[in-house]
Amino acid sequence: MLFEYVLKTSKMQEFVNLDHYLKDAIEKSNIKSGKLLVYCPHTTAGITINENGDPDVKRDIIETLNQVYPIHGNYKHFEGNSHAHIKSSLMGVEKQLIVHEGKCILGTWQSVYFCEFDGPRTRKIYVLVEAI
Amino acid sequence: MLFEYVLKTSKMQEFVNLDHYLKDAIEKSNIKSGKLLVYCPHTTAGITINENGDPDVKRDIIETLNQVYPIHGNYKHFEGNSHAHIKSSLMGVEKQLIVHEGKCILGTWQSVYFCEFDGPRTRKIYVLVEAI
Amino acid sequence: MLFEYVLKTSKMQEFVNLDHYLKDAIEKSNIKSGKLLVYCPHTTAGITINENGDPDVKRDIIETLNQVYPIHGNYKHFEGNSHAHIKSSLMGVEKQLIVHEGKCILGTWQSVYFCEFDGPRTRKIYVLVEAI
Repeated sequence: MLFEYVLKTSKMQEFVNLDHYLKDAIEKSNIKSGKLLVYCPHTTAGITINENGDPDVKRDIIETLNQVYPIHGNYKHFEGNSHAHIKSSLMGVEKQLIVHEGKCILGTWQSVYFCEFDGPRTRKIYVLVEAI
Repeated sequence: MLFEYVLKTSKMQEFVNLDHYLKDAIEKSNIKSGKLLVYCPHTTAGITINENGDPDVKRDIIETLNQVYPIHGNYKHFEGNSHAHIKSSLMGVEKQLIVHEGKCILGTWQSVYFCEFDGPRTRKIYVLVEAI
Repeated sequence: MLFEYVLKTSKMQEFVNLDHYLKDAIEKSNIKSGKLLVYCPHTTAGITINENGDPDVKRDIIETLNQVYPIHGNYKHFEGNSHAHIKSSLMGVEKQLIVHEGKCILGTWQSVYFCEFDGPRTRKIYVLVEAI
């Protein structure tokens, strides 16, 4: 079953926790065992799976990416947001998870995040849940 | 259904649009709803999903990766193409897409690209289309 | 079919070949044609697909990532391993492979690796094999 969710980001760059969307999709699909695909249809955002404990981890990832791929770098793209396109390709826009006993298999410290690199904007994600 | 396509890259580094291969695979499989996996069996190339409008975005990604991971860096690998191996791991070699109403769900500005980092070469991709 | 494997890493940073685990999962599932998902439930490790020939490639990837994302960088995360979280997001924690004629489709030089960035530790991977 295919689900579509709209989210509003509130900063230029931030990681938004998607776990409750994934939970919602699994519950609505009523699938207990299978797979879940999260897909981001944007080119200046991405999806990553990382630490949900200390929020400084998300901050460190965003800040370090800014140091390596500067917001105002030597880019040609006329919109001036090439840094966000690069980060989108680095994080990727799709992640595949295993659904087991009615929920995603995630490590103790793992959550799934929408990575906003050129916000704030209204964004969309697709979640596909399939039984196996 | 599994498809195999051969492509020839023409530069040392370039992003080749794969959209027509994916379209071809979906049409031949006659699958309307499901998933599509693109797989690159090479270690100095990758697959990414990014902007298909301004070609400067692709240029900016390639050039920025060259600045961060220099072509002639301090590498030990005897073939001298370690920069390409690193970029392959960063972009990834497999991407999973959703097939809906007979085509891949892609954002307005998204296309799927083969990332050549050590060309020009004759390369291969696999496309697996499955119904759900 | 879902499999779980435990592995012990022996260095702070290393790439551990996972090919024999994938082979084991495919044989036990007795699936000849389908897909295989490798999932890493850790936030300071990842999964990548890269060269299995010259071991200097793995070394070059690890060393170059250390140059770009220093182990002792300017990080806020109290555990002091932010570099490992960043590398985890860059490599990704899940990879999807095609199973064909009873084995994973891999290029001549490709193997699947567990990327340890904050070891040595006892780690876990999940392998899901599905028929198509």
